[in-house]
Amino acid sequence: MKPEDLKTLRQFVRSELTGDNAQVDTLTDKPLPVYDTFRETGLANWWLPQEVGGRGLSLEDSVEIVNEIAYGDAGVAFTLFISVLGTTMVQLYGSEELKARYLEPMAARGSFCATLGSERNAGSELSKIETVVTRDGDDLVITGEKFFSTNTDFADFLVVVARAADDPEAYHAIVVPRGTPGVEIVKRWDVIGLRASHTYQVKLDGCRVPADHRLEGSGLRLLEIGLNTSRILIAATAIGIARRIRDHCMTYAKSKPFRDGTLLDSPVFAQKLGQMEMLIDVMKSHCLKAARDCDQIMAKPDAATAFARQGTLKSALTAKMFCGQAGWDVASVGSEMFGGLGYTHDLPIGKLLRDIRYVSIVEGGDDVMRELVFSRYVVPVPRRT
Amino acid sequence: MKPEDLKTLRQFVRSELTGDNAQVDTLTDKPLPVYDTFRETGLANWWLPQEVGGRGLSLEDSVEIVNEIAYGDAGVAFTLFISVLGTTMVQLYGSEELKARYLEPMAARGSFCATLGSERNAGSELSKIETVVTRDGDDLVITGEKFFSTNTDFADFLVVVARAADDPEAYHAIVVPRGTPGVEIVKRWDVIGLRASHTYQVKLDGCRVPADHRLEGSGLRLLEIGLNTSRILIAATAIGIARRIRDHCMTYAKSKPFRDGTLLDSPVFAQKLGQMEMLIDVMKSHCLKAARDCDQIMAKPDAATAFARQGTLKSALTAKMFCGQAGWDVASVGSEMFGGLGYTHDLPIGKLLRDIRYVSIVEGGDDVMRELVFSRYVVPVPRRT
Amino acid sequence: MKPEDLKTLRQFVRSELTGDNAQVDTLTDKPLPVYDTFRETGLANWWLPQEVGGRGLSLEDSVEIVNEIAYGDAGVAFTLFISVLGTTMVQLYGSEELKARYLEPMAARGSFCATLGSERNAGSELSKIETVVTRDGDDLVITGEKFFSTNTDFADFLVVVARAADDPEAYHAIVVPRGTPGVEIVKRWDVIGLRASHTYQVKLDGCRVPADHRLEGSGLRLLEIGLNTSRILIAATAIGIARRIRDHCMTYAKSKPFRDGTLLDSPVFAQKLGQMEMLIDVMKSHCLKAARDCDQIMAKPDAATAFARQGTLKSALTAKMFCGQAGWDVASVGSEMFGGLGYTHDLPIGKLLRDIRYVSIVEGGDDVMRELVFSRYVVPVPRRT
Amino acid sequence: MKPEDLKTLRQFVRSELTGDNAQVDTLTDKPLPVYDTFRETGLANWWLPQEVGGRGLSLEDSVEIVNEIAYGDAGVAFTLFISVLGTTMVQLYGSEELKARYLEPMAARGSFCATLGSERNAGSELSKIETVVTRDGDDLVITGEKFFSTNTDFADFLVVVARAADDPEAYHAIVVPRGTPGVEIVKRWDVIGLRASHTYQVKLDGCRVPADHRLEGSGLRLLEIGLNTSRILIAATAIGIARRIRDHCMTYAKSKPFRDGTLLDSPVFAQKLGQMEMLIDVMKSHCLKAARDCDQIMAKPDAATAFARQGTLKSALTAKMFCGQAGWDVASVGSEMFGGLGYTHDLPIGKLLRDIRYVSIVEGGDDVMRELVFSRYVVPVPRRT
Repeated sequence: MKPEDLKTLRQFVRSELTGDNAQVDTLTDKPLPVYDTFRETGLANWWLPQEVGGRGLSLEDSVEIVNEIAYGDAGVAFTLFISVLGTTMVQLYGSEELKARYLEPMAARGSFCATLGSERNAGSELSKIETVVTRDGDDLVITGEKFFSTNTDFADFLVVVARAADDPEAYHAIVVPRGTPGVEIVKRWDVIGLRASHTYQVKLDGCRVPADHRLEGSGLRLLEIGLNTSRILIAATAIGIARRIRDHCMTYAKSKPFRDGTLLDSPVFAQKLGQMEMLIDVMKSHCLKAARDCDQIMAKPDAATAFARQGTLKSALTAKMFCGQAGWDVASVGSEMFGGLGYTHDLPIGKLLRDIRYVSIVEGGDDVMRELVFSRYVVPVPRRT
Repeated sequence: MKPEDLKTLRQFVRSELTGDNAQVDTLTDKPLPVYDTFRETGLANWWLPQEVGGRGLSLEDSVEIVNEIAYGDAGVAFTLFISVLGTTMVQLYGSEELKARYLEPMAARGSFCATLGSERNAGSELSKIETVVTRDGDDLVITGEKFFSTNTDFADFLVVVARAADDPEAYHAIVVPRGTPGVEIVKRWDVIGLRASHTYQVKLDGCRVPADHRLEGSGLRLLEIGLNTSRILIAATAIGIARRIRDHCMTYAKSKPFRDGTLLDSPVFAQKLGQMEMLIDVMKSHCLKAARDCDQIMAKPDAATAFARQGTLKSALTAKMFCGQAGWDVASVGSEMFGGLGYTHDLPIGKLLRDIRYVSIVEGGDDVMRELVFSRYVVPVPRRT
Repeated sequence: MKPEDLKTLRQFVRSELTGDNAQVDTLTDKPLPVYDTFRETGLANWWLPQEVGGRGLSLEDSVEIVNEIAYGDAGVAFTLFISVLGTTMVQLYGSEELKARYLEPMAARGSFCATLGSERNAGSELSKIETVVTRDGDDLVITGEKFFSTNTDFADFLVVVARAADDPEAYHAIVVPRGTPGVEIVKRWDVIGLRASHTYQVKLDGCRVPADHRLEGSGLRLLEIGLNTSRILIAATAIGIARRIRDHCMTYAKSKPFRDGTLLDSPVFAQKLGQMEMLIDVMKSHCLKAARDCDQIMAKPDAATAFARQGTLKSALTAKMFCGQAGWDVASVGSEMFGGLGYTHDLPIGKLLRDIRYVSIVEGGDDVMRELVFSRYVVPVPRRT
Repeated sequence: MKPEDLKTLRQFVRSELTGDNAQVDTLTDKPLPVYDTFRETGLANWWLPQEVGGRGLSLEDSVEIVNEIAYGDAGVAFTLFISVLGTTMVQLYGSEELKARYLEPMAARGSFCATLGSERNAGSELSKIETVVTRDGDDLVITGEKFFSTNTDFADFLVVVARAADDPEAYHAIVVPRGTPGVEIVKRWDVIGLRASHTYQVKLDGCRVPADHRLEGSGLRLLEIGLNTSRILIAATAIGIARRIRDHCMTYAKSKPFRDGTLLDSPVFAQKLGQMEMLIDVMKSHCLKAARDCDQIMAKPDAATAFARQGTLKSALTAKMFCGQAGWDVASVGSEMFGGLGYTHDLPIGKLLRDIRYVSIVEGGDDVMRELVFSRYVVPVPRRT
């Protein structure tokens, strides 16, 4: 990432997200204009590889970018990066035609894609997916209902994970253009935080796409691989939110009378902020480490094979877990820092508390993460840290 | 409390607060109709002594009552009990005339009073209060601005803590009828939780009351004494909210598919619920203990003197601290229990999380509580537990 | 408990356990002389009922007594109260002859009994017990090996839980005099804390006792009932240890230079001590509540039946869980309070940390407690708090 | 570090520290023979720069080395690396003569040095140091008493921090050969953990050294700089201990019967181990990051100046804080994992718990760390993470 990108980014955050006029903690029918403004920075879908016309920034850079945007608003950050989950799957396991057809426009237009994995009865246990894909001549026909899917309504295309009609043990990941007949938004979720983002329940009613829209490999494995990138960036949003909380505490403390001075002079306040900063420092180290792990595999000539062998990356799991937990600690302490004022919408801490909560919830709760870490990375002795 | 009272109470909670039509997580201009319905139970202002026509229920009973109502909605509970802060001060330190004039109507009509202590620059440090009361002939004239005050707009009267104009070290507590010229609502706070309650910023612009409206004793000390009751009941709301969270978890688990059965069969879920139940059990023991401590002093013939000597009760402080902390633990764990659904308004956990947060914030944050416990109950060796 | 008992107790603690010459953090071959000294207070086995010549003090009193002794040394406290586990079983489910023969001498001589439940492969899962009892004419013959049993070597008698040879689903609890041939101490455990106590691995090699030495009812159920008393008193030791830690912190702070004064002036120190005191206050409320629950059942004319119906008491479980957890928090914070000195044997904090650890380990770890609370007191809706 | 070094290291740990005959949790009069054995690996004082004949391994390598040794025994690790505190000061701020005279033998012989900073009344507040250094002709004469100093008795030389007799605001750091008349061991501390290490209270009674034995710069600043290296390595010991605890848990679980299988099948156990592994993963990421920060400055041509400007490194502070806290969490959970057996010396968990405690205590407790992080890295806006 060039230094001017970071500068542009900070300027965007300052003018659009943290300024006086910014108001993003609200559901709107259509994506907020802020996304158009972001496109003008030239950083939209920054992670898309140069071969499809993208900026080709690394996941390590992405951590910094997401951290910066989430400092402004985590919902905006989530909306802007979550396409990475789908594009990673297409980039690694899609044919050249699919990449050209679907990733190039995203790079050119800064548009979105969506990934449809979870279902009502298949949240943490994705193997219970009931959406079915059937081969019909040269086409694939998909039918089912997906529970949580972000950006879907205004996405260019969806990556849908479905069970094979002819083999209940097989799962496929299929690219489905948004406009495909049968793609139907059931509802938009009224979320408690991240309210600038748009998450939907989606029905797929006999959606027909050409058979070559199937990505190569097991759909569940591909999803795991895509999640490596998005989980790390979800973790990175916690850094941004935590930094924002810290800065709000400092700003508040500077003007809050305490004893003969301000709250800034309070040794008890200093302890809390010292602990917060420590947690932020550690969150960042570990997110960057996880991103480098992912970048290293991605840089290999046989990245697709290497990822298929590896599946879910340990550091991606531990980054999401740790940042969710540490972020919640920071927010919990932060939310007690402002007295009664902190219990009102006059200050942003209530929103930040709601926002940061998502890190431990989406794309697998901590129970699921811990179970995965245990079975994949503790039971096999050589994979332990 | 008679068993039929408890039955009535539960019926009220079921029909008004937890039923399908109940919607109390909303700001409304006027107090919700639910308060009128509560009045019909005959339990309004249940703690008012029989000598003013009240039910005379103990604080131990009050813990149970508040626990039950808060199970339905903590904001409703808070609205219904917070008058106890002011009435306790009037009951103990007001003249017989004041009691007859102000408490009897409250007992008869189930109406409200408000207490005005904190100011913008005097939150945890009440001695920094700038509201001033001046003697003017047979009257007292009060001028200042109070930051957080609940129920004020629709209260019968306010108990205002103010600094004496003629002695900056002296603080008075004065009864001010709501209709007194100069009492002006600056704004209603847009709170992040407890949204059925009404908390205001209030201006007092030369409010004039007869001199006998001053309560006997130091205003700060009287406030401390009143807070003994309200802090214990704030703690008790945490029990109700935590029980509600537990029950939601159990209901959800019963129908949530997990492996070959439901989440109810998950040993990990069992651990979390076992821990929650333990915390709830301990919260309740300690709130009841604190309430008994308070009831014991209140039962003394010289209760006013005894309270004046004692000031803030240790168990009232520790009850609020503990229930705030344990309640937050319960809610934090609870909020991760429902997967993505728990991050939407389709489930109440988001609201319950916002509601329970107030316990550690209002009427003194934990820093203030800990400082008080330390200076009053650890430094003096014989007062240690 | 009479006030003079408490005075005697404190004098005992001061002279024997906290004085300069006291050294109880040591394994000795024979019980420490301190137990003889305790006998002289007249409080030995204070809980034994008056009908067998005992003091008949309640469990609520016992909490206070154990709290006081544990302030001095938790290992001494544990040794002095743990007989309650066996005597409760005998008192409730033994014949009049058994009570006269075994409890009267304990009341008269202040001697000990031991309970032998757990086995190497039956720790938290007592139903896996392999020790077998066989009927042989008028006798019962017991064979097996017990893993952890306290006081056994110098006990008057043992209460052994064994599986019935003729019914693998049936478990008995049998009184076995210490001197019975075949009772063999395998080893004394070298414990990490509570080092004044004596815990043994014990072999039972064809131990023969009259058939009337069997207690009435299922051995596992009886054990559960006995554990109600001992678990509450184990919880109570945590109060004593935590109070000792608090007092050590205060003593240290008074003389530790800090800035221009002593550590006592540090607001950060005040916060920690305020939090400790809160936890101690809550621990005590809840232990006393649990003890009253137990005392209430014990006071019933049909106590044995009532206990058999109830089994493990919720508050006994939650008291042990909570005090173990809160005690560990106090000790963890306390152990960081003394700088490098706290990492040496020059100060007692290291010992106190080791001692308090046992609360969450013996008589069922927290996993087991949580599982029990869940299955017995959360799943059945009416039993929830 | 060459791969064969790591192999040698692991072989050393396996044969000397974790094998059946290893017994290092014991105080001995003389350093354990294990240190001689370590010398034979060729890795003794591995960090010493090549210009003095050392191996010149980076701090990043050192984190791995210390992690490996601490897996075996943290006291041995501490003894082997703590000289880095003194040698770093000499390497950066000593004359070429001093380096040749004192560091070359250490590199050649694998011997030790000691740093003498803290005093009885100057623990966390080093500016209260009372040890005084006086200029006397061409000599410096040092008198005072140092509280905690590791390796002193068998060190080649000591680095002593003392106040200037002629300027109470000035502090010097001076190299004092161990054999200097007046260096007197007052006592060896009987520590609660890390018992293979040797920490002393030391008296300096008119110790005379040539004036050129003073290091360049303020003694307090130099100490801060040296502490950057030792604090990171102290943090790294927590990784090793935590990994050892995890492995013990796994080994135990494999053979511990649980329900119909072993503890390894327990989902609750899996959760705990998954959480442990996450913490270990994060601890390691952050220690390595901190080490790289330090290595980067050390690699600069003007390292001494750069360090003098920087003083205490943020990541060194946060690494020690985080690893101390996370390590304590791991050990606390671990210590409840083994049932009653974990409360005996039959298993190593008790020792590991005592060992890991030191991370949050030595070289500045968390209060001091938090205060430093706050004042140095939160208050100045640009230095925030």
